[in-house]
Amino acid sequence: MTKRVAIIGAGPSGLAQMRAFQSAAAKGEEIPEIVCYEKQSNWGGLWNYTWRTGLDQYGEPVHGSMYRYLWSNGPKEGLEFADYSFEEHFGKQIASYPPRAVLFDYIEGRVKKAGIRDWIKFETVVRRVEAEGDKFSVTVKDLPSGTESTEVFDHVVCASGHFSTPNVPEFEGFESFKGRILHAHDFRDALEFKDQDILIVGTSYSAEDIGSQCWKYGAKSITVSHRTAAMGYDWPDNWQEVPLLTKVVGKTAHFKDGTTKDVDAILLCTGYIHHFPFMEDDLCLRTANRLATANLYKGVAWIDNPNLFYLGMQDQWFTFNMFDAQAWWARDVMMGKIQTPSKEEMLADVEDRVAREDKGEDDYDAIWYQGDYVKELINETDYPTFDVEGACQAFKEWKGHKKENIMTFRNNGYKSVITGTMAPKHHTPWKDALDDSLEVYLQN
Amino acid sequence: MTKRVAIIGAGPSGLAQMRAFQSAAAKGEEIPEIVCYEKQSNWGGLWNYTWRTGLDQYGEPVHGSMYRYLWSNGPKEGLEFADYSFEEHFGKQIASYPPRAVLFDYIEGRVKKAGIRDWIKFETVVRRVEAEGDKFSVTVKDLPSGTESTEVFDHVVCASGHFSTPNVPEFEGFESFKGRILHAHDFRDALEFKDQDILIVGTSYSAEDIGSQCWKYGAKSITVSHRTAAMGYDWPDNWQEVPLLTKVVGKTAHFKDGTTKDVDAILLCTGYIHHFPFMEDDLCLRTANRLATANLYKGVAWIDNPNLFYLGMQDQWFTFNMFDAQAWWARDVMMGKIQTPSKEEMLADVEDRVAREDKGEDDYDAIWYQGDYVKELINETDYPTFDVEGACQAFKEWKGHKKENIMTFRNNGYKSVITGTMAPKHHTPWKDALDDSLEVYLQN
Repeated sequence: MTKRVAIIGAGPSGLAQMRAFQSAAAKGEEIPEIVCYEKQSNWGGLWNYTWRTGLDQYGEPVHGSMYRYLWSNGPKEGLEFADYSFEEHFGKQIASYPPRAVLFDYIEGRVKKAGIRDWIKFETVVRRVEAEGDKFSVTVKDLPSGTESTEVFDHVVCASGHFSTPNVPEFEGFESFKGRILHAHDFRDALEFKDQDILIVGTSYSAEDIGSQCWKYGAKSITVSHRTAAMGYDWPDNWQEVPLLTKVVGKTAHFKDGTTKDVDAILLCTGYIHHFPFMEDDLCLRTANRLATANLYKGVAWIDNPNLFYLGMQDQWFTFNMFDAQAWWARDVMMGKIQTPSKEEMLADVEDRVAREDKGEDDYDAIWYQGDYVKELINETDYPTFDVEGACQAFKEWKGHKKENIMTFRNNGYKSVITGTMAPKHHTPWKDALDDSLEVYLQN
Repeated sequence: MTKRVAIIGAGPSGLAQMRAFQSAAAKGEEIPEIVCYEKQSNWGGLWNYTWRTGLDQYGEPVHGSMYRYLWSNGPKEGLEFADYSFEEHFGKQIASYPPRAVLFDYIEGRVKKAGIRDWIKFETVVRRVEAEGDKFSVTVKDLPSGTESTEVFDHVVCASGHFSTPNVPEFEGFESFKGRILHAHDFRDALEFKDQDILIVGTSYSAEDIGSQCWKYGAKSITVSHRTAAMGYDWPDNWQEVPLLTKVVGKTAHFKDGTTKDVDAILLCTGYIHHFPFMEDDLCLRTANRLATANLYKGVAWIDNPNLFYLGMQDQWFTFNMFDAQAWWARDVMMGKIQTPSKEEMLADVEDRVAREDKGEDDYDAIWYQGDYVKELINETDYPTFDVEGACQAFKEWKGHKKENIMTFRNNGYKSVITGTMAPKHHTPWKDALDDSLEVYLQN
């Protein structure tokens, strides 16, 4: 009997898993029956923009954390699919920091070509995954009809992402703050903060990028509060970095150094949590957001039951191509081409990864660590090899460009590690490019 | 063996159920073992204000739809507990439209006196309720520890409310509206809309009350769009009622009559949906928001399995005291004092209720219909009888006062149907009372 595989989520990771199977089928191999459950009405995961926040039209938590005017915050040369280059998709090389619509189009292009859309059940939320012997029962709800059903699968691939459920800390005085408090997950349009004094809590990508968006679209001032260290970029004049928020009184934010600032809105850029409310306890990944995730052999196979896989659950320098590497590898386990070792060996694998990550001293070590991980997985499958070292170099240059000028780094271009061609310089500096449509971006 | 009862939710309905059992125990009766699962860290349901919106600190949907500065929009004389008057709680009669903190204090007073807090497992979310023979398996997650557990119960009382999951329609142009769009569920502070032009979609209580709040706290203009009919009150000068929104272009809202209005924010006061993601399909209530709910015998017992009860799932004129009437009745079924009839008779009961509701012609008919329902339940249990007719009269006067002046109706007082005393006139007209604290409200 044909094996059955359930994939949870049709974002970049879930689509990578389907493309991996389709690629094997295209080579004449017999593949399992694939069913992908996707809560949203379209594929693309986070790249599928919605104006909705909080709960969606069916009362389910909104998946999207995507906001308007988002441009890639890292060079596209670090995430290019090895089996589907930007040049193949667009018919030409394009600039290095594409806005959302351009990346969505690129992601979609590969899976349209692969013809796997029929494998996906859209507007279908996974309610419950439970182990049943060496199989899984998966209960889903068809959202438009409101009816539940349960099916049995040999494998489950959890590709539901980990940038959808906000980590939302509380600070003294939030109960009575006389303004708006929101998490980055619910940020949609920088124009909502035009002419406002905004406070951002956090120093990671969301803080840096949402702050920059608000600056670009006319916020009056941006104050960023950090717990441990300032980001330290050379910010514009109306941007300041301050120590940790201690409390809010009325509209006044108080910081650890005794300074204060009156603000209209507080944006919590405080990260996301791994959240799998549909997974029974024994199958539920609990991990910090790090490069070496807990309890996943090769960063992918659930050690307690290696018929279950989690894709893309790492903290990420590499993204799309890492998901590909993982998906191809998971495919080969499911198709019996790769055997997982004993539980002891799998546990040792995780321990070793943790130890190696912990030895790293800076971001550069982290980049190369993850590059090595991608190479390791690629070497075990038929995913096209590519110049991972070159991608690491692009990340390194990118970090340098950010240090030079955080508001101009997106004006730079890098060399594709897939096709070897240089990206053109974009026609308009990022800070002046208010139209983020695909049509305008491609006018190079 | 002692029966076991699971109660889902410790808001007004769930607390009523616990108080009903405790009241029987106080009279010397033997009661089942009660376990109440409450997602929030405190009791009070919607009356437990939180600044959070969207998802909470555990990634669960925020229950609260409560906003700052909310005053009861109906007279407290319509919702007074028959077994615990406002005078008993506050030591004096108080004015008729208490703000949130005052009502929370009142709700809490009764259950503090009853001493039932130990029955509640706080920060525990119900993940799954399934029928197992004539019992139920209830799987819950302890949120702080993140661990799941399953227990078996003879009865389940679902009291999770139906004003927590927003109904969020989409209108053309929302994808690109250059401002903020939110549902009433996520509205927290009218000050966020000071000096703004706001558009409200909807004409029910949320629309009327949130619009009034925003007006009171300095919104520049309020435009309310209706699908079928305007509310028709005598609104302030900067308030207009317009036909249905047809589309949004940039910041411009277009209405069915061809008029337009530039707005900064769109508030969807478009109601709530009954949403029970934890209920297996065969136990899951699907009903319109109406007085005669689908598939509930006596508006309470799940016809397909009358060991399961739903409290407070009706559209509501009566609230706290109706939940009490339901809870006392459900208690008596669980304790074997009331027998549910055959399925055919129960189905006929619902049909009859639907037909009687459908015969009503206006709000007054609806009020008396629900008053009769409350009386019907009360007559079958030992819940203290009270002058339901008098409560209906208070609702009637209230509607008259609203028609007279929508911005002053809260300055009126009514007679308690429990203690017979008149409410004092509040010391400050609602529109001038910016401090909504308990201390200030009680300064009569």
